[in-house]
Amino acid sequence: MPSSWETLRWVGGLAGQLVLLDQTCLPGELREITCRDVSAVVEAIRALRVRGAPAIGIAAAYGLVLGLQPAAAAGTDALFAALEETRQLLSASRPTAVNLNWALERMGHRARQLRGVLEPPGILAALLAEAQAIHDEDRATCRAIGRHGAALLRDGMGILTHCNAGALAASEYGTALAVIYTAHEAGLRLHVFADETRPLLQGARLTAWELVERGVDTTLICDSMAAQVMREGRVQAVITGADRIAANGDAANKIGTYALAVLADAHQIPFYIAAPHSTFDLTLDCGAAIPIEQRDPREITHGFGRMTAPAGVQVYNPAFDVTPARLIRALITDRGLIAPVTAPRIAAVLQETAPAGGAQRPAGTGNSAAGE
Amino acid sequence: MPSSWETLRWVGGLAGQLVLLDQTCLPGELREITCRDVSAVVEAIRALRVRGAPAIGIAAAYGLVLGLQPAAAAGTDALFAALEETRQLLSASRPTAVNLNWALERMGHRARQLRGVLEPPGILAALLAEAQAIHDEDRATCRAIGRHGAALLRDGMGILTHCNAGALAASEYGTALAVIYTAHEAGLRLHVFADETRPLLQGARLTAWELVERGVDTTLICDSMAAQVMREGRVQAVITGADRIAANGDAANKIGTYALAVLADAHQIPFYIAAPHSTFDLTLDCGAAIPIEQRDPREITHGFGRMTAPAGVQVYNPAFDVTPARLIRALITDRGLIAPVTAPRIAAVLQETAPAGGAQRPAGTGNSAAGE
Repeated sequence: MPSSWETLRWVGGLAGQLVLLDQTCLPGELREITCRDVSAVVEAIRALRVRGAPAIGIAAAYGLVLGLQPAAAAGTDALFAALEETRQLLSASRPTAVNLNWALERMGHRARQLRGVLEPPGILAALLAEAQAIHDEDRATCRAIGRHGAALLRDGMGILTHCNAGALAASEYGTALAVIYTAHEAGLRLHVFADETRPLLQGARLTAWELVERGVDTTLICDSMAAQVMREGRVQAVITGADRIAANGDAANKIGTYALAVLADAHQIPFYIAAPHSTFDLTLDCGAAIPIEQRDPREITHGFGRMTAPAGVQVYNPAFDVTPARLIRALITDRGLIAPVTAPRIAAVLQETAPAGGAQRPAGTGNSAAGE
Repeated sequence: MPSSWETLRWVGGLAGQLVLLDQTCLPGELREITCRDVSAVVEAIRALRVRGAPAIGIAAAYGLVLGLQPAAAAGTDALFAALEETRQLLSASRPTAVNLNWALERMGHRARQLRGVLEPPGILAALLAEAQAIHDEDRATCRAIGRHGAALLRDGMGILTHCNAGALAASEYGTALAVIYTAHEAGLRLHVFADETRPLLQGARLTAWELVERGVDTTLICDSMAAQVMREGRVQAVITGADRIAANGDAANKIGTYALAVLADAHQIPFYIAAPHSTFDLTLDCGAAIPIEQRDPREITHGFGRMTAPAGVQVYNPAFDVTPARLIRALITDRGLIAPVTAPRIAAVLQETAPAGGAQRPAGTGNSAAGE
């Protein structure tokens, strides 16, 4: 373990609990909460105590186990009734979280495979193993992203990142930050500039916190300062995560990412996106097809507990923007680097490296639109 | 008057008071404070109840009158002793506010001209008239900027602005917002996008407030959203103020302005700077000579009353950045438009249009580094 904390972990065996780091308390307080039933998991997802699509997916898988624990002593029919009820509760907690439903579907599929084969306690044990597999696979995916991306970095580099695509958004290493952690652990001296990322300040509250926690030299800036830091020659690479990547490489990510890509281009700084292969949505030809979610205006007008804008002002609060493929120097995936970023190259890398018969994650499960 | 409020105003005659709109209460509350002595003015400047270099200069001029009121019944020596004491108190309230000291020097010069010519009550009357002249000249300067700049706008345009270069920073119309107000009053339907302007949120708290107050169609965005708004084709011009402009046209302004200029260039949107002729500092060849003030890290880490970043993180908080002249389509000044933005053209417009023997404001008195 690289840290003294984990984004989420299962404690105990079949009768165990899910322990989450409560991200709403960060950076002020390192507080864990123990979820002993499915309603506690639903509340934690809804209240953003756990966020980041991969982490939400893992939490939902464990949440399903919690929901079935009371039914394990009953018969098979009761178990499957509880499964359906629990699935619906969890699915509704963040309606648009693709990874959440993917994890629930995978768990349900596993349960159905074993119906009539094992008794309820055996099915529950298999589902706990499946949740742990989802968790382990996410760790491995993040590590692979880190390994492939670290090859792009050199000693002494300044790296700019945006929002939180780190350990807190996934199981352990994250995506964009996995690249930085891997290079840092290999002994490279890096300096990271973390955009605070308005309106929800995930960069300040979460990214800066986990980087400092792991001993990475980190400077926090406001989003509006990125251009100045680039101009001063302090940044040699920009790395962000992504929420969804179209077949041609256009990539949706947290609002502000597109600005960074344009600014990096103007300063001749390479701009990279790090994401698992599951973030690619090959059903979309290009980024124009990716819908941009509008968020609550109060995130901007009342983001800090008091009103900081006049009553009656209109607010535009897109949660994401789309960075065109031409501004992305390379895509850093668990299956290797994709460069140049073109539709044929993306198809080739994803297909060449796909494990035969391996469990494929559905599109959009990286750090999905509901991940924040 | 275009509004029901004024940034600052003198009420009464020789025994009158200075009434200020308390900007620290905006946008939640429209509260005026009455300064009856110089210490109240010093406190108001120090606490940013009045901010924006032109407004600070005007407040200081009236503050000097307040400081001399008790001495008007005494002899000439007592009056000039009070003048020196009051000047020092006001000068120390914002040590780097160029316009503040310029106003105080102008007031002191006027007093010395009249020493031995008039009795103390007559000198005090002349100083009140001088303060009112400073106030009136600023109004006229802002109106002229508005008139010249409005010629660049067309019906239906979207205009993006940053920070507050409006009525609240000056006496009535402001600089960048003067252009918008003038076009708006001429009947052009404009839509303004106001960057919230982290870390101190002058865009959200002040610019959005005064635009809404005057009936201008306004949308508030986070700084990181400007690129997206440009990409969506919603912005046809970017207009900001400036703090100091070098002889070649490089312009220092609130952090984030340079990013907007690069982004506007990438989207083929004209980027304009509006500033009085006094903002030009012709002693500086180019922007590299303009020092960039570093501000308190707590503006970023504790900007909203609670800690939003981890303890121990480094913070970079430059108050300003410098936009190179090549990215500025035109400079909008009270003496006319300057385009293309080149040293010879700047020198020509400023010299051609200088009033013979007119009172010249010193360099950097527009919306100076201490204006925020």
